[in-house]
Amino acid sequence: MAAFSTLSDFAALVAAGPNADASARADAEARNGQLTKPPGALGRLEDLAIWYASWRGTDRPTLDAPQIVIFAGNHGVCAQSVSAFPPEVTAQMVANFEHGGAAINQLAKAFGARMDVHALALDRPTADFTKAPAMSEAECVAALAKGWDAVDTSADLLVTGEMGIGNTTAAAALGAALFGGAGADWVGRGTGVDDAGLATKARVVDAGLALHQHRAPLEVLRCLGGRELAAMVGAIARARAERIPVILDGFICTAAAAVLEKLHTGALDHCVAGHLSAEGAHGKLLEGIGKAPLLSLGLRLGEGSGAATAIGILKAAVACHSGTATFTEAGVSDG
Amino acid sequence: MAAFSTLSDFAALVAAGPNADASARADAEARNGQLTKPPGALGRLEDLAIWYASWRGTDRPTLDAPQIVIFAGNHGVCAQSVSAFPPEVTAQMVANFEHGGAAINQLAKAFGARMDVHALALDRPTADFTKAPAMSEAECVAALAKGWDAVDTSADLLVTGEMGIGNTTAAAALGAALFGGAGADWVGRGTGVDDAGLATKARVVDAGLALHQHRAPLEVLRCLGGRELAAMVGAIARARAERIPVILDGFICTAAAAVLEKLHTGALDHCVAGHLSAEGAHGKLLEGIGKAPLLSLGLRLGEGSGAATAIGILKAAVACHSGTATFTEAGVSDG
Repeated sequence: MAAFSTLSDFAALVAAGPNADASARADAEARNGQLTKPPGALGRLEDLAIWYASWRGTDRPTLDAPQIVIFAGNHGVCAQSVSAFPPEVTAQMVANFEHGGAAINQLAKAFGARMDVHALALDRPTADFTKAPAMSEAECVAALAKGWDAVDTSADLLVTGEMGIGNTTAAAALGAALFGGAGADWVGRGTGVDDAGLATKARVVDAGLALHQHRAPLEVLRCLGGRELAAMVGAIARARAERIPVILDGFICTAAAAVLEKLHTGALDHCVAGHLSAEGAHGKLLEGIGKAPLLSLGLRLGEGSGAATAIGILKAAVACHSGTATFTEAGVSDG
Repeated sequence: MAAFSTLSDFAALVAAGPNADASARADAEARNGQLTKPPGALGRLEDLAIWYASWRGTDRPTLDAPQIVIFAGNHGVCAQSVSAFPPEVTAQMVANFEHGGAAINQLAKAFGARMDVHALALDRPTADFTKAPAMSEAECVAALAKGWDAVDTSADLLVTGEMGIGNTTAAAALGAALFGGAGADWVGRGTGVDDAGLATKARVVDAGLALHQHRAPLEVLRCLGGRELAAMVGAIARARAERIPVILDGFICTAAAAVLEKLHTGALDHCVAGHLSAEGAHGKLLEGIGKAPLLSLGLRLGEGSGAATAIGILKAAVACHSGTATFTEAGVSDG
């Protein structure tokens, strides 16, 4: 059971989250300097491995139990025609996840990840945020708790994914509320809206911003977000409490993560950005949380797919770090 | 046994290489359009999967037998102090590969690749190209044949890697000879030379260019290249003959591959660029062969390490393409 029952309890937990292990980091840096390769020749893979080691608390970590958790939610704001797909697709895609038919299932299999799917009250969409707060405090806390409890504490890596027709609009609203700017600065084509749909999304976000002027991060999440976004916030916070590194996915996941960073600077130190999404404003979100993406392949699917694709990169980094022989072990001259 | 015994026989084989299967490509494109995701939402993964399918000749390919082949060679040009490491490191690293201790071994394990290592006459370095052609025709043909024969014809993906103290200098000479410019435009810090070393490398390349003015691609390879570069050329050409897709590695591998593209336009259609190396002129080589890298993580190790890291990306692409359910199969509305 989640260790919080109010938004302020949750905020206190986030503020109390542990830091990386400085001694494991120092040991990992020392090991990295001894490996049979020119200094720095593995580039960002070296930084990744050292960061991962510092969170796992050992200079020679393994990565063999990644977990992908997908949260699904429905959005009242869909009544405003913000998506190219009808809201019933959320439940249809949940069934597709459960039957192993979605792209994320294939990625989970390819990288040996456990995958869990949580459908959050799909029959009760959040309120239309142009008319009322998307969630009550109780609803928001319940979604955060769902995310918190969904993390497998024996996992050694977490990817959070989402499904929710309409949720690029909610994520754009979060971005604007947390970092400033108008709807037009933050909306994108999502699953594929046309120019008129894009203009609608911008107007809808502006209406939400006008109605909900409180900018405290958890209030932003409650008023403009959605259950699957709140669940991702809860899961990412829990991962830190358990010292489980996280690969962030695209626009929606990063918008959720940004709530944590705004709540408590450094709350995402256990996270790397998996990829740069093709959803236009994702780069601005990444800039806002100070993360450079590992991949830039034009993905914009959600489901955790970009982050899952990046699992291979992190596995490569950890394998090279923990498995490569030192100059002494291999009898190689170190220049 | 390789099907050529002269450079001109080899050139004829390259010119006669097969093309991708247009009908498999069309079928793969059709399948891609039916998968349960918004059109284009997997970005470059979609293009990769379709390209891979076209070379494997089936609309629903698998990727589970990648081969990594590493070729090692020594370079007479090392007498000119072009490297931060002594030439004996080539043989030491070959032993490290054979004992499973190098970074590439860990990557091969991480991505389920078979790995083979071929040391090419390490006790007989090529001639110093500032004084004579690096190889005789017979030596060059022998190295090409070694590469040709090293390809496992049952593999479904090939990565070619290399080890050879001094070989960034040879690769820079190839780049300059094939695409124009002076030594300074093409040399980089390799395993880590200082400013004086960098200036030496530029002078050495210029001296090689002045001595060997013939610009036919295979003559460039013979006069300025090295055995491991020629072997990579042979292996990449063989992969095409067998319709095995290739992920190109960094600066040295791409310089070798460029020989094929210059020899016969389109000879690298079965190749993707795995990554952008931190070795300065790699971007120019990729531009020269018209390929955009999959990754840009600052690697500059060689050994095939950047390409091997990209195996995960291609596996992800193929898994999504061949495993994801169609809208009809999953009962999902297609918008």
